[in-house]
Parts: sequence; structure tokens; C-alpha cells
Amino acid sequence: MLGLMQNHPLLISSLIDFAARHHGDGEIVSRRVEGDIHRYTWADVQQRAKQVANAIDALGLKAGDRIGTLAWNGYRHLELYFGVSGSGRVLHTVNPRLLPEQIAWILNHAEDQALCFDMSFLPIIQGIHAHCKTVRHWIALCDADKLPADTGIPNLISYEAWLGSQSPDYEWPVFDESTASSMCYTSGTTGNPKAALYSHRSTVLHAYASALPDVMGLSARDAALPVVPMFHVNAWGLPYSAAMVGAKLVFPGPAMDGKSLYELMEAEGVTFAAGVPTIWQMLLGHTSANKLRFSTLTRTVIGGSACPPAMIATFRDEYGVDVLHAWGMTEMSPLGTVCTLKEKHRRLPEQDKMKIRLKQGRAIFGVDMKIVDDDGQELPWDGKTYGDLHVKGPWILDQYFKGEGGDPLKNGWFPTGDVATIDADGFMQITDRSKDVIKSGGEWISSIDIENIAMAHPAVAMAACIGMPHPKWDERPIVAVVRKPGVELTREQLIAFYDGKVAKWQMPDDVVFLEAIPIGATGKMLKARLREQLKDYKLPDA
Amino acid sequence: MLGLMQNHPLLISSLIDFAARHHGDGEIVSRRVEGDIHRYTWADVQQRAKQVANAIDALGLKAGDRIGTLAWNGYRHLELYFGVSGSGRVLHTVNPRLLPEQIAWILNHAEDQALCFDMSFLPIIQGIHAHCKTVRHWIALCDADKLPADTGIPNLISYEAWLGSQSPDYEWPVFDESTASSMCYTSGTTGNPKAALYSHRSTVLHAYASALPDVMGLSARDAALPVVPMFHVNAWGLPYSAAMVGAKLVFPGPAMDGKSLYELMEAEGVTFAAGVPTIWQMLLGHTSANKLRFSTLTRTVIGGSACPPAMIATFRDEYGVDVLHAWGMTEMSPLGTVCTLKEKHRRLPEQDKMKIRLKQGRAIFGVDMKIVDDDGQELPWDGKTYGDLHVKGPWILDQYFKGEGGDPLKNGWFPTGDVATIDADGFMQITDRSKDVIKSGGEWISSIDIENIAMAHPAVAMAACIGMPHPKWDERPIVAVVRKPGVELTREQLIAFYDGKVAKWQMPDDVVFLEAIPIGATGKMLKARLREQLKDYKLPDA
Repeated sequence: MLGLMQNHPLLISSLIDFAARHHGDGEIVSRRVEGDIHRYTWADVQQRAKQVANAIDALGLKAGDRIGTLAWNGYRHLELYFGVSGSGRVLHTVNPRLLPEQIAWILNHAEDQALCFDMSFLPIIQGIHAHCKTVRHWIALCDADKLPADTGIPNLISYEAWLGSQSPDYEWPVFDESTASSMCYTSGTTGNPKAALYSHRSTVLHAYASALPDVMGLSARDAALPVVPMFHVNAWGLPYSAAMVGAKLVFPGPAMDGKSLYELMEAEGVTFAAGVPTIWQMLLGHTSANKLRFSTLTRTVIGGSACPPAMIATFRDEYGVDVLHAWGMTEMSPLGTVCTLKEKHRRLPEQDKMKIRLKQGRAIFGVDMKIVDDDGQELPWDGKTYGDLHVKGPWILDQYFKGEGGDPLKNGWFPTGDVATIDADGFMQITDRSKDVIKSGGEWISSIDIENIAMAHPAVAMAACIGMPHPKWDERPIVAVVRKPGVELTREQLIAFYDGKVAKWQMPDDVVFLEAIPIGATGKMLKARLREQLKDYKLPDA
Repeated sequence: MLGLMQNHPLLISSLIDFAARHHGDGEIVSRRVEGDIHRYTWADVQQRAKQVANAIDALGLKAGDRIGTLAWNGYRHLELYFGVSGSGRVLHTVNPRLLPEQIAWILNHAEDQALCFDMSFLPIIQGIHAHCKTVRHWIALCDADKLPADTGIPNLISYEAWLGSQSPDYEWPVFDESTASSMCYTSGTTGNPKAALYSHRSTVLHAYASALPDVMGLSARDAALPVVPMFHVNAWGLPYSAAMVGAKLVFPGPAMDGKSLYELMEAEGVTFAAGVPTIWQMLLGHTSANKLRFSTLTRTVIGGSACPPAMIATFRDEYGVDVLHAWGMTEMSPLGTVCTLKEKHRRLPEQDKMKIRLKQGRAIFGVDMKIVDDDGQELPWDGKTYGDLHVKGPWILDQYFKGEGGDPLKNGWFPTGDVATIDADGFMQITDRSKDVIKSGGEWISSIDIENIAMAHPAVAMAACIGMPHPKWDERPIVAVVRKPGVELTREQLIAFYDGKVAKWQMPDDVVFLEAIPIGATGKMLKARLREQLKDYKLPDA
């Protein structure tokens, strides 16, 4: 027997309609690529998103067609979020930090019909447009008079000219909430990038969950600053959740240096900010050097990579700002866990609270998680045992666009590629990447733990721990080390340094001294390349 | 093109599984019918809800079968919430304050197969069981040794004996999220009561929305006390939203006097409470008389009827407790609006904030509302114009159980039966019931406004305003008045009292002095009966 409640699909167009109707004068403030500050309201976003929808109709694009964006965080990008998805097309946000040939590859793979780009990226488009087979419309996110005369890009039009003649009257189509709304390619550290294809349902459910008090805690009293880019996993869904609750949005544009961010936060009364640790490092550098304080900021969500303990402590103790450690993935829309303490933790000593805050946090309702061993058996939530982290839920990927890579699920769960512990209170902590963990005699050794110890040695400039094949133990860890210039360090000295810091069986079997360890574009060590480099290496006892 | 996210239905069983897994040691504290305090955890709720599911299976009940409850707020009722709905049956909560014959009528109409009742209600069941044609299983919510020997009720079993032998292992069935989960009959002021039939989808979406910061703002740091009964619109959904966020739940059982509530709140660290104004009046009476303070309570949601301004002021100014005015209906699961101020209101003078707090508040995302005139034309949101309040959304009724009363919707919107204004910021204020508003010459006059002015006259004990047929104006207001004992008051004096308080055309045409005005069981004036009583009345100029 079915219930007798009304049947309304969860659609992204409802979010912008709600924001315009209930928070019509709520502000959206953007630092533009041009450098100046642009200011308007949720009612304006709705009007212009409807102009976008009419403009797309005028291009003759069909439902489900992909429209790419190559843009910073700003109001025009926001209009595209609602106008493209609301009208039934798929918003494809592209990461401008990729190499031009990767961008062209992605546009071709997604079969984008149109591409909207900030003028910062004109040189990229000039370089690749001839190789983008499906893109028929190039739209520069600027005023008509800002468009250079001879770009060499056929059919290039300015966004404002494109919208200019369109009506702000538009009736959003109503369709199945499982319809695709937006897509984002993963960074693709191995092989070609693959795309997550989000739906209206997954996006709206994610918005509800992410605004909850124990997650981002968003309300109509907030001014939210997404420093996390709108070109990567929809700025953690903030454009949607802000519309849902009527929060003010503040966009930094391309100016993400400490000074620019700080000035914007103070000028606009920002209460909430979201970003990766490196951004906050720059911000804290600026505030510390200039003895500045935050007058309205109450909390910041930090994700993307593990947040250094010192940063959490500095934000809390020196600035009175709560840091919420979070974890997610492109394949998870992205939010999986956020580290908010429970009532039972309220009276703990500060150092015990800090231990919890360093974890990636608790799952949000809508995300199920478990850790499993090599055989897929679930492991206990004791805060010590670690295993492969698997997740499932309505905003988690079922398969990649075009089925690339085959079925990614294991028994209905998505393997995150992370190794983690989960404690009895449900707080998860990432300990390693699955492909980097060393499996020795049925036990797992965290490569990160081994590296961190080596890094703590005064003679070590950089260290990478990888597993090497072993006839008896399957794998044994070795540590590749770059010595600091002019400093002595022997294999024996470094191995002795591990004494008392890890169990005997976790200690590295060998040390390999190198001139350099391969590093990728985002600053992460490329262990796959290191393994390739050391392919002829043999363990001392193997 | 469909998105490629996982397909997980929104099910009530997921809520209890989530609470048990992530907040397994989170407490549920209940004052029992027996008077003592019972204390256990979300993990226990899950185990016993699964025992309930196995026990229902053992009775041979089918998916969709209705199971009734006649019970106070307490842990066994909570187990039934999850065990009945989670196993695919429909939880039918029945209001024990109805007349026994009404209860029997409702059980028959719902075709309940089983009924679970608190021992407080044994006399009711003894009186009606022979008239309940479909109920085959009577379950008393008590220990086996508390069951009297000769109740006269066939097949009566104690809840604990019923659960006792059942396994706590149970795999929740997975089904369409639109499946019926629970039902609640309206009070039925006109004609027979009609039932809203909620779905798993509507319940889970409502839980997400009601936990948002601008709604109830629930988190794992809260201890929530639902004084609103679980037998009426699921205690405003608190059992579900508390499970979703891992909040502690505190149940008052039948003891809703000021002293019992206060002691429970203090003993259990209650941070959040929800109830109707009369309950809080009793609570404030107790705290005021005994000069008590709330040490943990931060906020209370008040709904069910309009909250007196003095109560909001007392809670805020004397106790430092935020009062959130809310509005909803049985047909709305129930939440429609909650009055939380926006950032723009933060710097307003206190008296201006109070004017906003007296409104029923802003719509939650998921609820669309509008006010319309007699022709169904939408009226402006100016805070002055009033019209019939219509709503729509995924947790709002589409039709009543068994299609009773035909199609209740108008152009896809549910007419609430309330008359309201909505201001430019989206704050809605109920001004009257649709059936009581007086329609005079195309303009509407609020009967409540006219009554409130009369009530402010020192000689008036009670006043009721109703519309009377008029050949030219359709209707004109008259006011029926009960004078205070031994006080003089003439028609002319009272009409003169309206001078300057309302526009000329809104002033009552006549005053009718009565010995008494008919009052219903819940303390509300019965205007239908008053109209019947005055059916031969003629307006002076009609």
C-alpha cells in the first residue's frame, strides 16, 4: 500500500525558486575576474538563471545535453548551476588547473555542446578549441564590450550578449528526480579521468544533509564563503545548500591569496567558510603577520586532505574559530563525514577533544560506511583496526559516466580507495590510501605512519614508504629517503630511529637513498612512479 | 538521461539502523506509566524494534496492514514506530483523548489488525473491544506480570510477553519509498475524522527538513523532550529526526504537569522541547511559583495554536529560552513553517523582533505556500493582504485514506482552511480560520481581530465574531458577547469602542448579548454551534 502524500520530485529548480521567493533580497557577493565586487540578490539569480534556460533553449540543445564550465567561483557560474540543471541539461564543471590537452580530452569524452569560460581561461580555449569536436557554442563569461575582436574562436559570444535578449520568464520543466543534473571528472591519478554523474535527487538530498547542524549547520543567518572551487564537486554543494536555507553567498573569484580572502570575509560578514588546508595556511599567514582578527567568522569546514593539527589549534585558540574536519570524494557529491563532537565529548579535556577533531568524523545520515579486510569481511569499529573504507548511499556513485572502468561497486558498496579506522562512536580516520598500504603477513602497515616517522628525523628532507614483494610475507615496507643537503644519515641509523615508535614487524626492512622523490602537479608524492623507478630493487632477505 | 548515483530508497528502517550504528550509546529516557524512569539506548531501540518486527511476522500480518497504538510518549511506543513501519506495516497512532465510540469508529475505519495500548487506557479498550471488528490482537504495553487476570478482552497479551521470545535479528525489507508507513486521523471538527497516510519518503524528507538549523536545529549535542504526543502527527516527527541526528530523547509519559516536566528536564539535561502553549503555561506556572531556572534548556518549539506574546517574552526575558513559533497540520506531517529570524533582523529593536516572532514563520524548503482570494488568484506577500493559505510539497497530503471527502486539492495545492498574511520576507501569520472569516463586499474581515477588540473591553468576559447574511454585502460581522457579572454594557457602548481601532467597514454591525458561548472539549469556541443557535437572527438593516 502506498502512502497518500503529494508526489513532487526533488529538483534543483525548486532550490532557486525557494531562495528567490523566501530570501529574494538575500545577497550574493562576488569578486569578479575583473577585480571589482559584484553584488546582487537571490531574486536576481533566479531571473538570470531563467534567462540562461531560455538562452539554452534558443541554441536548440536537448534535455540531457552537457554544457561545460571553466570558471572561478562567481555569480555567473551560480546562474549556470541553476539555469543549466534546472532546464534539464547537465552542468559539466571542468577543472581549469588540468593540462589543456586533458581539458580537451574531457570535453570530448563528455561530448559537451557548449562551453562557458571565464576570460582568465581564454588562452586555454584558444589552444584547444580546434580539438573539441562536439562543442558548437563558446561563451565567454563577460560583458559584450570585454570580448576581444580576434580570438580565433568560431562563434564566440559574450555571456551578457547571450543572455541579454532573453526573457526572465521561464517555466522550469518537471521531470524524474533521478535525471542527471551535473557531472564532474575525477582527477584520474591512474589512467584517464572518469566522471561522476549526479542527479537532481542526489543533489537535493545532499543539500538537506549538508545543511544539518552537525554537518555545515547552514541557516538564513549565515554568510557562506565557498573557497572550494565550483569547478570541483560543486563547491561541496554549497550553492545548493545555501539556496535551500537562504544563506548569503560570498564568492572569491580567482583571488584566493590571504589578503584578498581576509578582506572579503570582513567586508561581507562571512560566518562560514569552506576550503582546503593550503588556502587556510595562506589566510592564517596573512592574519598572523598583520595581527588581524576575524570579526564574524565562527567556523570553517576543512577537507580535501587531512588538516594539520596545528591549524585546527590555531584557528580555535588564537581566533576562536571552530574547525570542522570533513571527508568526501568526487564520487560522493562529495560529503561523507564531518567531525562534530557529540554531547558526551563536551566535558573532555581539551587534548582529548583534539584527538577526536583530527579524525575525519562521523557519517551523515544518508551515508553508510564500513571497513573491510582483503576478503571483504567487515572489521570492528574499535578505533584501531584498519581496513578498506567502503560507502553507500543515495548521493554516492553507482557507476561512472559511459560505464568507464566497469562496475566500481563491491557487493553494492563503493570502495573509496582509502584505508581507515572507525571508533566505537562512529568517528572515521583515514590512515592511508588502499593502494599504498603495505600488506605483510596478513597484517596491514600504514605507509603514512612509516613516512611520518622518517620525516621526523632531523636528517630527512623527504620520505616515501612503499611495499616490496617478499616471498614469505607477501610485502615488506621499505622507505625511500632524500637526505637534507650536507647531512649524514645511514640505513642503520634511520632503521634504529624506528625503535620504540612502531612494532618490530612494522619497521621498514630497508632504506633507499634517492636524489629526489617524484612529485605530481598537486604536490602529492607519485608512489606509482616511485615503484616503477624501483622496479629492479630486491629486498635484502628476498 | 538519468544520473548514475546509487538507488537507495528513503526508509524509516534506515533511521533506526543509523542511530544504533552511530549513536548506539545515545540515551532514550522515559517516564513510564508506572511512574518510574526507564533508561536505555538507541542500540536497544533497534534490537527491540527488530523483535517487534519478528513478533508482527509471527502474527501473520501482511505488508500494509495497520497496527494501532493508544499510548503516551515512551520507549515502547518508540519501538513500535520503527518496528511496525520498518517491517512494512502501517503504524496507526490513535488519540486516546477522543470519545471511546470515536476510537472504535477510527479503528474500524482504519481496519487495524492489532492494537497496542498503555495500561492507562485499559478501561477504554474494555469498553470498545467488542465493537472493533478487525482487531484480532490486543497488546498491553506492560510486563507480563502487570496484566490483570480477567480483563474480558480476548487474546490479550502483554507487550513484553509478546516480544520476549522473539529474536533481535531481523533483516528490514527494502521496498518503494512511497510505501505507506504510518497514519493519523484528523480531529474531524466537521463530519467523521479523516486520515492522513504518510509514506517512508515523506517521513524521511520531513526529518531532514525539520532538523535544519532554521527549523528545530537538532544535533547529537541535543536532548530533546517531545511533549507533543506521539499519538498526534508523530510528535511532530521528533522520533525520526532525533534518530537521524543521534539526539538523546526524553519522554514524559503521562506526567505532563509543570513539576514533572521541570524535574525531567533538569535531571536529563534537556536542551530542546516541543509542545503546545497550554503545557508551557503549566510549566511556567511551576517555575515561577518556585523561583526555578532552566539549566540546560536553550529553545522550545511551540505550535498547535498561536502562542501568547507574553509567553514568548517570559521564556526569553526571564529564562533565556528561545521560543520558536511553528505552524503545521496533521495533513502536513506536520511542519510547514517555523519562525526563526533572518540575519537582517539581528539588529532590530526588541519590540520589532517580537512582532516577527508572533508570526507563524517561514516555510521550510519542501513546503510551498501561497495565499489566494475567492477566485483562487494569488495575493501579494505584503504582510497585510490576507487570503486562504494553500500549501504543497512532498510531505503534504494528496488525498485522505480511502479517498474520504473526495479530492481535497485545488489545482494541486492543499487548502489549509486557514486565512493568513505573508510578508515580503516570507513570514506567514494566521489571521483566521477560512470558515470563520467574514466576507463583506469582496473584502475579508478577520473574526479574530474583531473578537480580540471586544475582549479588550473591561466589561466583556467572552466574545465571538461571526458573519451574518446581508443582501448587499453578502456578509456582515456581528459580535456575540458574554458580559462580566454585574457590569453594564450596551450595544452602542461596545460598537463605539471599535472607533479608531478598525476601519469603519470592518466594525461589527450589531452586538448580541448571550449568557454563554458554546465551547468544545479542547477549549475552543464552537462557532458552528453559535451560528446554529443564532439561525433566526436578522441584521438591523437586512
